[in-house]
Amino acid sequence: MTRSQIVVSDEEIFAAHLGGKLSTALSSPLDTERALSIAYTPGVAQVSRAIAADHTLAARYTWANQLVAVVSDGSAVLGLGDIGPAASLPVMEGKSALFKAFADLDSIPIVLDTKDPDEIVETLIRLRPTFGAVNLEDISAPRCFEIERRLIEALDCPVMHDDQHGTAIVVLAALLGAAKVVERDMASMRVVVSGAGAAGVACAKILIAAGVTDITLLDTQGILHKDREGLNTHKAEMAACSNPRGLTGGMAEALAGADVFLGLCGGVVPGELIATMAPNAIVFALSNPDPEIHPDEARKYAAVVATGRSDFPNQINNVLAFPGVFRGALDAGARRITERMKVAAAEAIFSVVGDDLSADCIVPSVLDPRVAPAVAQAVAAVSGD
Amino acid sequence: MTRSQIVVSDEEIFAAHLGGKLSTALSSPLDTERALSIAYTPGVAQVSRAIAADHTLAARYTWANQLVAVVSDGSAVLGLGDIGPAASLPVMEGKSALFKAFADLDSIPIVLDTKDPDEIVETLIRLRPTFGAVNLEDISAPRCFEIERRLIEALDCPVMHDDQHGTAIVVLAALLGAAKVVERDMASMRVVVSGAGAAGVACAKILIAAGVTDITLLDTQGILHKDREGLNTHKAEMAACSNPRGLTGGMAEALAGADVFLGLCGGVVPGELIATMAPNAIVFALSNPDPEIHPDEARKYAAVVATGRSDFPNQINNVLAFPGVFRGALDAGARRITERMKVAAAEAIFSVVGDDLSADCIVPSVLDPRVAPAVAQAVAAVSGD
Repeated sequence: MTRSQIVVSDEEIFAAHLGGKLSTALSSPLDTERALSIAYTPGVAQVSRAIAADHTLAARYTWANQLVAVVSDGSAVLGLGDIGPAASLPVMEGKSALFKAFADLDSIPIVLDTKDPDEIVETLIRLRPTFGAVNLEDISAPRCFEIERRLIEALDCPVMHDDQHGTAIVVLAALLGAAKVVERDMASMRVVVSGAGAAGVACAKILIAAGVTDITLLDTQGILHKDREGLNTHKAEMAACSNPRGLTGGMAEALAGADVFLGLCGGVVPGELIATMAPNAIVFALSNPDPEIHPDEARKYAAVVATGRSDFPNQINNVLAFPGVFRGALDAGARRITERMKVAAAEAIFSVVGDDLSADCIVPSVLDPRVAPAVAQAVAAVSGD
Repeated sequence: MTRSQIVVSDEEIFAAHLGGKLSTALSSPLDTERALSIAYTPGVAQVSRAIAADHTLAARYTWANQLVAVVSDGSAVLGLGDIGPAASLPVMEGKSALFKAFADLDSIPIVLDTKDPDEIVETLIRLRPTFGAVNLEDISAPRCFEIERRLIEALDCPVMHDDQHGTAIVVLAALLGAAKVVERDMASMRVVVSGAGAAGVACAKILIAAGVTDITLLDTQGILHKDREGLNTHKAEMAACSNPRGLTGGMAEALAGADVFLGLCGGVVPGELIATMAPNAIVFALSNPDPEIHPDEARKYAAVVATGRSDFPNQINNVLAFPGVFRGALDAGARRITERMKVAAAEAIFSVVGDDLSADCIVPSVLDPRVAPAVAQAVAAVSGD
């Protein structure tokens, strides 16, 4: 069931990055005196004067209102960790390019030479008139929770930390698909989440919002439970709202009899443990580039297997979510990206699969052009709720 | 000698601004799994890893190194004054568009919701890995002097306040042309500068650097001289290095027998005062949209007349300078835009006029495609000096 893996040489990768992956372009040419006098002096003064008199007109007559700032401090980049803002830039450019390619949204990378949450929040407040939405990216936990919360409070525009909510939306979409394949409903499934960082916490929250009642999270120290000491605020919060059977211990205890394994933090899960899961198990081994268990191995024991990789079926990738989510929020003029909008986005992704649904097709292809418009429409439709 | 004025309706101006004047574009399409795996995961990790190991590689493999941030706080926008960051955005978008159109430089507007110099400097230091150069724009005097000076010290990249130095470069270029027309040299001319704000101070400085020895500045209170009380630091500095004959009084005292009038601050200068200037006088009435004196009136008494308007000969417009200046500085990898580079830029603009030089052609057309490359080459050539 393995597809052919895409082999790309380092040479080709670096050549494709020469000079960066983004550029700016003009909405119309500036090659006549007439064009200059419209777009620059003296004509532009009319537009500035109008916006000065009525600030809401900036949304209509500048690019900022529909511009997504992709913001990072480079503290948790891909699997590379804290490599700093300059080294994170290729990822942020890639993200901005994906916004353009999939949702026709203009987007600029903003990489910050500070990791102080106060300074990050303050900087984005000062930059507020520059953009129309903020996609936070690759900011380490638990700082990402505080930074996102404070920015949502401070800025009157959509703000979303994609590592949390983009992942959560696509995981929920995929689980909707997998559950239908194995003919189960959300409420009856036992879910195990390996990883209690940004993505793990957000996935757990959206799954609970979608009806999952028995969910257990693990971090590197084992299962989160109410009596565990030394948990940070976010893990303690999750311990309080998960693990209803009061499990303790590690992966073995968590996986025994479970219906769903969701791997988000690297590490290895041996086949023997997957074998202890309930019949018709669902395994999402999402760590990149090395899944927690090889999908061929997992498939021996599980009915549905997904990874983050493009060379296996069921690729779970945030690009299915974020372009459409921001497009929908901006189209609707939404000031917040709500839980309702995220769930609607997941349902829209799931809906695109349609009749193609099977164990090897629980999510659409990342290249499916129907996804972003469907997500945008679904998000916009519930933005007023 | 008036050219036909370009008449553009408000309707056309606002229609041209719908959705803004800029957009982002991809360097190459992202429509295959192969392209995604190069520009995004997993390929991009190679590039990020390389930059993490050697930060200088960011210059090669991201867009930031050649990206100009057009930065404003909206405190002194065109002739409109302190209209704030949102209302300044159409001007900054226009500026970014001009960078692209004339020098093929990518550029993004950054408008800041603070007017505090400390906060502006601090914000740009935090944003440093995001861009490769800073074009400060429409920031009010005297704050603009401090902000520019501190940013030049703090950032290891080209920083230039265009209202000061872009104007100064083009004024010097035009004066080189005008002086040749009237067969005078810089050192022998008496120059009067009306306006001691950002542009006036910078013009005075570059003219002094270019050999002018007798220069007198005026602000709204009259002539700057060493004994005048209540001058701010910047005006006191100019009073100390100008006005060698110790003039006092106002415009009448300054203009009597002067060779050059440079108007930069609005207001009206009657023809009778221009008539008191020396024979073969040069008048640059640069206020927009209303020159200090109508060029037809000025031409009765002066040998050469220039304005900022496109509907009269000799349009003095910053767009002749800034695209090429930044292009040259970035091409050369310069960390500073030095006085030497600014003078070289002015000489390059002047050189493009060539054999077309006449009283009605002292500067090239703003649309002349030879200007920006000539300026860039001249600036880069002296960047190592």
